[in-house]
Amino acid sequence: MSDIEDLRQSEDVQQELREVQELLARHRVVEGLVHRQEMPRHELVETLLHKQHIAELRAKLDRLHPADIAFILEALPLDERLFVWDLVKADRDGEILLEVSDAVRETLIEAMDSHELVAATEQLDTDEIADLAPDLPSEVMQDVFRALSVEEREQLRAAMSYDEDSVGALMDFEAVTVREDVTLEAVLRYLRRFDELPDHTDQLFVVDRDERLEGVLPLNLLLVTDPDEMVSNIMVAEPLTLEPDEKAQTAAQAFERYDLVSAPVVDKDRKLVGRVTVNAVVDYIRESTETEQLSRAGLREGEDIFASVWDSVKNRWAWLAVNLVTAFVASRVIGAFEGSIEKLVALAALMPIVAGIGGNSGNQTITMIVRAMALGQVQQESARVLLRKEIGVAMVNGLIWGSLLGFVAWWLYRSVPLGLVMTAAMSLNLMVAAMVGVAVPLLRQRLGYDPAIGSSVMITAVTDSGGFFIFLGLATLFLL
Amino acid sequence: MSDIEDLRQSEDVQQELREVQELLARHRVVEGLVHRQEMPRHELVETLLHKQHIAELRAKLDRLHPADIAFILEALPLDERLFVWDLVKADRDGEILLEVSDAVRETLIEAMDSHELVAATEQLDTDEIADLAPDLPSEVMQDVFRALSVEEREQLRAAMSYDEDSVGALMDFEAVTVREDVTLEAVLRYLRRFDELPDHTDQLFVVDRDERLEGVLPLNLLLVTDPDEMVSNIMVAEPLTLEPDEKAQTAAQAFERYDLVSAPVVDKDRKLVGRVTVNAVVDYIRESTETEQLSRAGLREGEDIFASVWDSVKNRWAWLAVNLVTAFVASRVIGAFEGSIEKLVALAALMPIVAGIGGNSGNQTITMIVRAMALGQVQQESARVLLRKEIGVAMVNGLIWGSLLGFVAWWLYRSVPLGLVMTAAMSLNLMVAAMVGVAVPLLRQRLGYDPAIGSSVMITAVTDSGGFFIFLGLATLFLL
Repeated sequence: MSDIEDLRQSEDVQQELREVQELLARHRVVEGLVHRQEMPRHELVETLLHKQHIAELRAKLDRLHPADIAFILEALPLDERLFVWDLVKADRDGEILLEVSDAVRETLIEAMDSHELVAATEQLDTDEIADLAPDLPSEVMQDVFRALSVEEREQLRAAMSYDEDSVGALMDFEAVTVREDVTLEAVLRYLRRFDELPDHTDQLFVVDRDERLEGVLPLNLLLVTDPDEMVSNIMVAEPLTLEPDEKAQTAAQAFERYDLVSAPVVDKDRKLVGRVTVNAVVDYIRESTETEQLSRAGLREGEDIFASVWDSVKNRWAWLAVNLVTAFVASRVIGAFEGSIEKLVALAALMPIVAGIGGNSGNQTITMIVRAMALGQVQQESARVLLRKEIGVAMVNGLIWGSLLGFVAWWLYRSVPLGLVMTAAMSLNLMVAAMVGVAVPLLRQRLGYDPAIGSSVMITAVTDSGGFFIFLGLATLFLL
Repeated sequence: MSDIEDLRQSEDVQQELREVQELLARHRVVEGLVHRQEMPRHELVETLLHKQHIAELRAKLDRLHPADIAFILEALPLDERLFVWDLVKADRDGEILLEVSDAVRETLIEAMDSHELVAATEQLDTDEIADLAPDLPSEVMQDVFRALSVEEREQLRAAMSYDEDSVGALMDFEAVTVREDVTLEAVLRYLRRFDELPDHTDQLFVVDRDERLEGVLPLNLLLVTDPDEMVSNIMVAEPLTLEPDEKAQTAAQAFERYDLVSAPVVDKDRKLVGRVTVNAVVDYIRESTETEQLSRAGLREGEDIFASVWDSVKNRWAWLAVNLVTAFVASRVIGAFEGSIEKLVALAALMPIVAGIGGNSGNQTITMIVRAMALGQVQQESARVLLRKEIGVAMVNGLIWGSLLGFVAWWLYRSVPLGLVMTAAMSLNLMVAAMVGVAVPLLRQRLGYDPAIGSSVMITAVTDSGGFFIFLGLATLFLL
């Protein structure tokens, strides 16, 4: 628990970051003088100034919590990041590697040799090693594996076998277990034999001789109850349990709903395998909402903000390519009406409005429905109710905004028929947006896909091409 | 802790929802028979069938956790929701009102009379009453207030005074305090006098006679240490503390970074005011990412999925109006080039591609930068590095996608100059997107605004109007 003294407010951590940057800048000035040969190299090595900066930096890093060092490393450009990474005490490397983002972790691991990597990894618990494993060279993992006990190897193998989005991936192996046929007094004596309890121990797990879970003993109950009481009398006999193959999302929902701090993980035979704690769940929630946010903007994964141009291009190209295809289709829809546009060029100026408002309205619908689906509130049976409501909203909006824009079109081009076509096209495209906005996520769910992914691209593609088609089509029919 | 037995996996809760819907449907059938007068009303009241459904439903609701009842209420259309709400035991109303979403809470409160509301509210802790307060009629709040003790009134007044996004709003008053000059044995004896400890008690707060915080005593330490030890010897003397006026975001970052379960809240004089627990933080994280997601799609707030058409229109109009204005501006830019389009109608078909790709690329840039800023990793000094990188990415993308589209334009319209204009316009618009994508969030931050809000609208407005202007402008200069 000695880390507790190092905890800082986030403004304080940002202050630390600024001080590190300051020290690095001063260091760079000295280096710069050497580089420009205004100061001979060998003198520098002796320079008190130089040594002092390094010492100051090192001392600062030693006082910081691993999570805060991770934060600082992420905020520094590559060369400064590696410089600071070199100054960090080797026995903290493992913890820090766990804390940094995937993109930054890659840059740090690239800068370490196998020996350092093995040393860093060996400091960690097996569930943590499993988290790092995908980023480590295989010869490093082999060395690490050899250094583990039989039980740890078994745990590591299990931890690595679980799907990334499963409960197993959130799980650790630090469950403290007791038997049901002892007194609380005995439990209290047993606990005093520990140097410290694992973090987030809010309950002990009651198991039988075969490690099968029989209940949980919340510390809060242990502390308020007469020590002569038996565990079996006060334990909670049917606690919520998770299984390693369940979706991580399931665990997250249970933790949120019931305000849990930890939960036991059991296998098919109710044998206790491990536990999930709230900190793993918080990280999971943060990461999954972040991934969703990034993928909504078409970024494949979190980007090291100081990534090279080329890495960034690779991270972003897929979405741009998809967008290009949908834009091309929309462009061809317009191409089909080139004759109409030639006769009435006002159409070219008005058509993006119809497409744009449709896209926005559709995105509102789809966002709301995808969110309700993620919470499990939308059954296929509700589809009709939702569709009716969304079409109602589209009709009202079509009337309001369509009329307004019809009026604007009339005012700009002094043509009543053009105004009417504008109003009709807006209303129709809003209706299309509502229908697609309800149908697409429901359909994707029924087919077993994640309703969120790509929903925004899809709706925009439909409302763009659809909007152009409806507006130009109506205009061709009624105006020319 | 008796609630623990009611905890369910989320699939099980969805199963419960389906069963409730089933019972409601059967109930509706009976009601329908009466309504169509195929069964006389007075007979129905006696019908075993009817009574049985109600009893079954009531029994089911009694077994469910308040959070699960809240989930079911949210997933039901208004009339069925109120029907179920009537069947819930009155002494659970308060807890359930706390759990439902704002939009659904309004519908439930509307259906209750003052007497019921006062009774429901009085079951809650003062910090919870403060959460409900904004939704309650003022005469209800006055009655509730009168029923509180002096200390509770003080707490409620304090809790209601804090800003919605402050630590004070996350705080509760259930901190368990001890003195430093006692033995752990005495602490253990003191704890046994409680019926139960407050949820999420992972540490006790060590205070002096004036309630000033001197340290914290983690239960994990209490349990593993010799009971004859003094509190002062093992307490953590300088724990992380929060202040009620700090931003909730600060607390959330500290909890995430350091994996906390609870943290003390102190005033300027280090007097202990309350504590923040991880469950409040998880709710805050969930809510704030949700709000961000909704506002990104232009929804003012979470919408009851069964809201009336009119409520939905009101929730969504603001963004559509903003979008209308930006679309109008873009339309006027095109209007300025109507002469050019008349001469070369291919321009009308190609221009949305330039605008669309620019918008997508700009959104990628801005999403990445806003996210890094939210994590505190972007200082104003990094601006130049970031700008250089983003312009680099834009140039590479301009070259790749611009050339591809230039080729497509040539292929479609057999005009080399048109292809070259297309390539140039794409590259320029991507560059504009990159610059605005970096500049807008940094500028907003420097001016003290939230960099996220409206960033997507702004960039799309610029890349639309800018894209049309660049493409049509270049075409007018070089092709006509």
